[in-house]
Amino acid sequence: MRAMNQTQPQSGRVPVGIIGASGYAGIEATRLLAQHPRVELRLLSSDRWQDEPVEKRLGPLDRLDAPSGKLAKLRYASMERAPELARECAVVLLATPAEASLQLAPLLLQHNVRVIDLSGAYRLRDARTFQAAYKLEHPNPELLEEAVYGLPELLPQAAARLRGARLVANPGCYPTAAALALAPLLEAGLLADEPLVVDAASGTTGAGRKASEDFSFSELHDDFRAYRVLRHQHTPEIAQTLSRAVAGRSVPLTFTPHLLPVRRGILATCYGHLAKGRTAAELQQVLLHKYAGAPFVQLAAHPDEVRLSAVVGTNRCQLAVACGGEPFDPGRVVVVAAIDNLVKGAAGQAVQNLNLCLGFDETCGLGTLRGAFP
Amino acid sequence: MRAMNQTQPQSGRVPVGIIGASGYAGIEATRLLAQHPRVELRLLSSDRWQDEPVEKRLGPLDRLDAPSGKLAKLRYASMERAPELARECAVVLLATPAEASLQLAPLLLQHNVRVIDLSGAYRLRDARTFQAAYKLEHPNPELLEEAVYGLPELLPQAAARLRGARLVANPGCYPTAAALALAPLLEAGLLADEPLVVDAASGTTGAGRKASEDFSFSELHDDFRAYRVLRHQHTPEIAQTLSRAVAGRSVPLTFTPHLLPVRRGILATCYGHLAKGRTAAELQQVLLHKYAGAPFVQLAAHPDEVRLSAVVGTNRCQLAVACGGEPFDPGRVVVVAAIDNLVKGAAGQAVQNLNLCLGFDETCGLGTLRGAFP
Amino acid sequence: MRAMNQTQPQSGRVPVGIIGASGYAGIEATRLLAQHPRVELRLLSSDRWQDEPVEKRLGPLDRLDAPSGKLAKLRYASMERAPELARECAVVLLATPAEASLQLAPLLLQHNVRVIDLSGAYRLRDARTFQAAYKLEHPNPELLEEAVYGLPELLPQAAARLRGARLVANPGCYPTAAALALAPLLEAGLLADEPLVVDAASGTTGAGRKASEDFSFSELHDDFRAYRVLRHQHTPEIAQTLSRAVAGRSVPLTFTPHLLPVRRGILATCYGHLAKGRTAAELQQVLLHKYAGAPFVQLAAHPDEVRLSAVVGTNRCQLAVACGGEPFDPGRVVVVAAIDNLVKGAAGQAVQNLNLCLGFDETCGLGTLRGAFP
Amino acid sequence: MRAMNQTQPQSGRVPVGIIGASGYAGIEATRLLAQHPRVELRLLSSDRWQDEPVEKRLGPLDRLDAPSGKLAKLRYASMERAPELARECAVVLLATPAEASLQLAPLLLQHNVRVIDLSGAYRLRDARTFQAAYKLEHPNPELLEEAVYGLPELLPQAAARLRGARLVANPGCYPTAAALALAPLLEAGLLADEPLVVDAASGTTGAGRKASEDFSFSELHDDFRAYRVLRHQHTPEIAQTLSRAVAGRSVPLTFTPHLLPVRRGILATCYGHLAKGRTAAELQQVLLHKYAGAPFVQLAAHPDEVRLSAVVGTNRCQLAVACGGEPFDPGRVVVVAAIDNLVKGAAGQAVQNLNLCLGFDETCGLGTLRGAFP
Repeated sequence: MRAMNQTQPQSGRVPVGIIGASGYAGIEATRLLAQHPRVELRLLSSDRWQDEPVEKRLGPLDRLDAPSGKLAKLRYASMERAPELARECAVVLLATPAEASLQLAPLLLQHNVRVIDLSGAYRLRDARTFQAAYKLEHPNPELLEEAVYGLPELLPQAAARLRGARLVANPGCYPTAAALALAPLLEAGLLADEPLVVDAASGTTGAGRKASEDFSFSELHDDFRAYRVLRHQHTPEIAQTLSRAVAGRSVPLTFTPHLLPVRRGILATCYGHLAKGRTAAELQQVLLHKYAGAPFVQLAAHPDEVRLSAVVGTNRCQLAVACGGEPFDPGRVVVVAAIDNLVKGAAGQAVQNLNLCLGFDETCGLGTLRGAFP
Repeated sequence: MRAMNQTQPQSGRVPVGIIGASGYAGIEATRLLAQHPRVELRLLSSDRWQDEPVEKRLGPLDRLDAPSGKLAKLRYASMERAPELARECAVVLLATPAEASLQLAPLLLQHNVRVIDLSGAYRLRDARTFQAAYKLEHPNPELLEEAVYGLPELLPQAAARLRGARLVANPGCYPTAAALALAPLLEAGLLADEPLVVDAASGTTGAGRKASEDFSFSELHDDFRAYRVLRHQHTPEIAQTLSRAVAGRSVPLTFTPHLLPVRRGILATCYGHLAKGRTAAELQQVLLHKYAGAPFVQLAAHPDEVRLSAVVGTNRCQLAVACGGEPFDPGRVVVVAAIDNLVKGAAGQAVQNLNLCLGFDETCGLGTLRGAFP
Repeated sequence: MRAMNQTQPQSGRVPVGIIGASGYAGIEATRLLAQHPRVELRLLSSDRWQDEPVEKRLGPLDRLDAPSGKLAKLRYASMERAPELARECAVVLLATPAEASLQLAPLLLQHNVRVIDLSGAYRLRDARTFQAAYKLEHPNPELLEEAVYGLPELLPQAAARLRGARLVANPGCYPTAAALALAPLLEAGLLADEPLVVDAASGTTGAGRKASEDFSFSELHDDFRAYRVLRHQHTPEIAQTLSRAVAGRSVPLTFTPHLLPVRRGILATCYGHLAKGRTAAELQQVLLHKYAGAPFVQLAAHPDEVRLSAVVGTNRCQLAVACGGEPFDPGRVVVVAAIDNLVKGAAGQAVQNLNLCLGFDETCGLGTLRGAFP
Repeated sequence: MRAMNQTQPQSGRVPVGIIGASGYAGIEATRLLAQHPRVELRLLSSDRWQDEPVEKRLGPLDRLDAPSGKLAKLRYASMERAPELARECAVVLLATPAEASLQLAPLLLQHNVRVIDLSGAYRLRDARTFQAAYKLEHPNPELLEEAVYGLPELLPQAAARLRGARLVANPGCYPTAAALALAPLLEAGLLADEPLVVDAASGTTGAGRKASEDFSFSELHDDFRAYRVLRHQHTPEIAQTLSRAVAGRSVPLTFTPHLLPVRRGILATCYGHLAKGRTAAELQQVLLHKYAGAPFVQLAAHPDEVRLSAVVGTNRCQLAVACGGEPFDPGRVVVVAAIDNLVKGAAGQAVQNLNLCLGFDETCGLGTLRGAFP
């Protein structure tokens, strides 16, 4: 690996950029990095907001108590100029659709810019699985092998792995919730060998910005439905992550997403059965042990306590497991996990990964998120 | 069986009553029966609205184009006086909590008033299962045997059975959605013999009227969570109905309810696997055949099309099945059903049952419901 | 005036049509007319749903208890064919944008089809006022004079006027609420001669169907704002109606619309002062007297009782007045009115007008609307 | 004035407390002060959460990147013990109802604890006005005179005044929005001498935590209504603040609050007319000049741009003015202001006042609030 850009600005802050800055994940990342104490936002790129000052679009972003004055002047660059401007950055977040990320990541890597990609372009290891899920031939299968899947809580030796990574594949929102819920239990052999069910619901920002009638307020408000039943592109990503937890064995599973009439938040309700010979008490113990040092995972005592309101506006995943079901379904295991799809499910996790890439504390710039409830 | 009250008023309308008329199901029933062309609302009972005129609480109820003038004068009677006043009625709907229904139903039956009970008091056949689910000893186990479970679409010879019934147990809201989704497939032997999962979400009116902080707007809006995980009292009711579909064999299942930030509507996403030797095409065929004559069941082509907005404000159940999941979970069957919890899940179904009890057309008084969307 | 089409179908029902049937007002009108006992839906026109069966889009529409079977077969016709097909209809509702109504109405009138136009194309009497408000030169100023402004509660001799009308201008949603609130008080000389304020808020369906990012759920949910401040095209319409109440004198006023995060409903809060020498008691008396025979106006005792939930899903206007304000603003008059923007503010009022045009009871086909709350 | 408590803890942080910490304003204040870099939360008091650890109720509060470890151990003290425990604090926020604040403030002042009261107990200068608005005789009218009304943007020499204050009356939420909108225009003589209208709408948290059926989700969702029309207790508070802007002359006004189906946010739409001889351009100039140095006021170019989504989750007030209305109401002035009722309308403003009391930068601890949208 060649040396990556590490140009330090005078301030001692690391220069970073965001390409695709006008989508919801891009906006969230902009806000987070604008207040991050150890980086400097050098590049924001978006065609739709080209040449506009960032504060015109997002309102005041500077920390009022530590204003740099730079943000007020920052303007969105065109996507065309983004790769060139990105050379000044040590790390760039790609908050672009998979198609764009497939083009941009190799360009940036060529110029020694490290990339954290928020799309699905580099999450799957296998090019054929990618093609089946995204209906695109992957132009750089070698990058699928190189990319580090950035779910630090489940990544062995995450700090070391990410410290050296050129390309980080930031996990999908549903896969983050599902994998944090199930992977530790599978890894510990606590779940019976049978198909799992992940039944999840997401707020509307998960679908991105849409000038679509189907996503209009009048159509979505007060409604609820499943979508892409038995064919959502996050299914292979969840399967891959769970498979890693059991040494590569395949983990059969069905994933059903639903569309909630809220802006933010994902709740995943996951179903399996306790493996023979194992006890219900082990479930909680394994989660406690797995997440003992994880600053963003919050275990609750029971699935009834897990809710969107506990996590929306934060980088946390709230999680709980229950086992029971007698006499109707003995040994049933239910794990419920909640995250904010735009934070732990996208921009927050990207900043967490950026922190580990740059050797910062994992929580840097994420520690002041307070939640949005009540 | 002694002759039931059949006093016909001059108008030729059958006198009916609602006890527990100030809860959400009671209000919905009031509105439906106020416009029903073949009954006359003779009794509305509620302690909290005692002596108040019904139109003060619910607004104008009379059909503007066929005003009877009677409703404007109708006042809520106290619960104490309800049993006595109910003697004038041929049928009474009990929209009361199970505890009250346990007291009231025997009293009314003694006076030859037919009862349609919307609570869980008479839904389970087995007194011990009742006690486990409702934490109450059942005072009249013989009524558990007598009560007809009023889910006409699944009740063999529904018209005849309900025509003669003294006591109808109106199904729960979740059990209605889950059973309409799964029972025909089980009955036809299309599902593998393994535990099923019913993952469902309901609007807040399902919890009834509550002067509770937990159910306040500020706490529930924009939130989503599971509740009573692995211990909801509707689990045995669903299990019982599904068991009937397979000649009494037990059907293992797990049911997880969630609380949606909407007022009305239930969506149930149900999971099983295709039985060996059966084909995906049979799933849709069986549903088509089963519900060919069911005026309130609407089959959709795919689960993605099933949504609250298609059913809220109507007595319909919208339903669809998909089978697939390859390569992640071959043979997976997903059935999605949607109902309005206060209509097909409570008051509408009670009116449907009342129609069949009285020999009316099943759709009488339910045919003009138009839906509430957009 | 030439004789209008009165072809009666065998059934004795009057043939009617809706052009612009896929917008929210068009859908609402479709549902209402599908269940109207005295008309037959002969034409539904929409380019976006061209050739599709109506029930595919709107779900079952037939009255279940009085199915005609015809609706199941009805398909949307193209806009191009609409004028020709409309010749079979006695009355056509135009649920089209003003631009389209300006084209269509003269064509239909030529063929002796009576027109109820839901757009703003024929509401203003004065062509210059129209041009200023709609930024269009009016092609048929003579129709502005002929058109009857269809707010029956305020139209002198409404039944007679509408019975003979060829062209009815169905009022705007905000103007309906504002005029029902203020016109009787102005007419009775109860309000001081000073500028009035109409501060109103509407659900999102008032903006019509939009494939617009600004109207996406993610952008509008949990938000609230004013729009078109001091320049909304409904201002001249309100002014015109109020002016008629005072013999043509001009009534200065400011109208501010706001966008509510709900689908349906308008609440208008209107401000004036009591005229010298008049008493607070007269305010309520005048409203009572004015609306004594109005089946769709419901007076409440105090503005605090007026709310969307009392009217959404119905053709009602709920209304109340208060006077007071001592010592901060003595003699202040506040009138609050609520309607469903798609019913009394659009399709319901159009049906009310259609009823009067055809000599039916004013409430025909509107009497079973039950409201959508809780 | 006796010396106030200034005991500095080892950390150099000022010890502060919150009494009434389980209400929505109390919770918001807890979150803000938990992350405030210059204070230490020493006391949280609430009977309902007595003895519970704060993090059990509010989730993790510590700044993850600067954990003190103290918050995890902090428990809610009973209200009975609060006054005694408060002696350790330099400043205490009272997030209590007015009745409790009337009791607590004198007790705390006696022990040299400075008080920032979030209730209405000390906002009105005049004891009779207080009695009329709150239906309580004021036990300490001398404190009404002493209390500093903490709206720093409008308080002449705010830093100096608050630096010395023993008792700060934190403004009400509606009065904050209304006064920031209107006071500068009145002060500059730009508004005609006639009654003003303040028509405002608030999210449900403004009503506080309620175990009330009227405030349940099922009752409030999708609804909208005015409340306390012509008799809201914030009317005299707005009148008092506006009067101060015009040298004590009385400013006639009517204020109408509405209840929005959102959790947070207030939008106030305010109406007046341009004073004779003044120009529309002056309106914007006066606001620009008045708020030039105000870190939390954000002027927008037009009222259409002011919206809840721009301010919810921040301590900002967004504000804009328009003038026009020709030909319907020439010279009409409309000012629209938006705030988060729990931040700038309560806890955030209290922290802003606390900062000025303690000589910190006005934005300290408020600078990282990022907003909650999309």
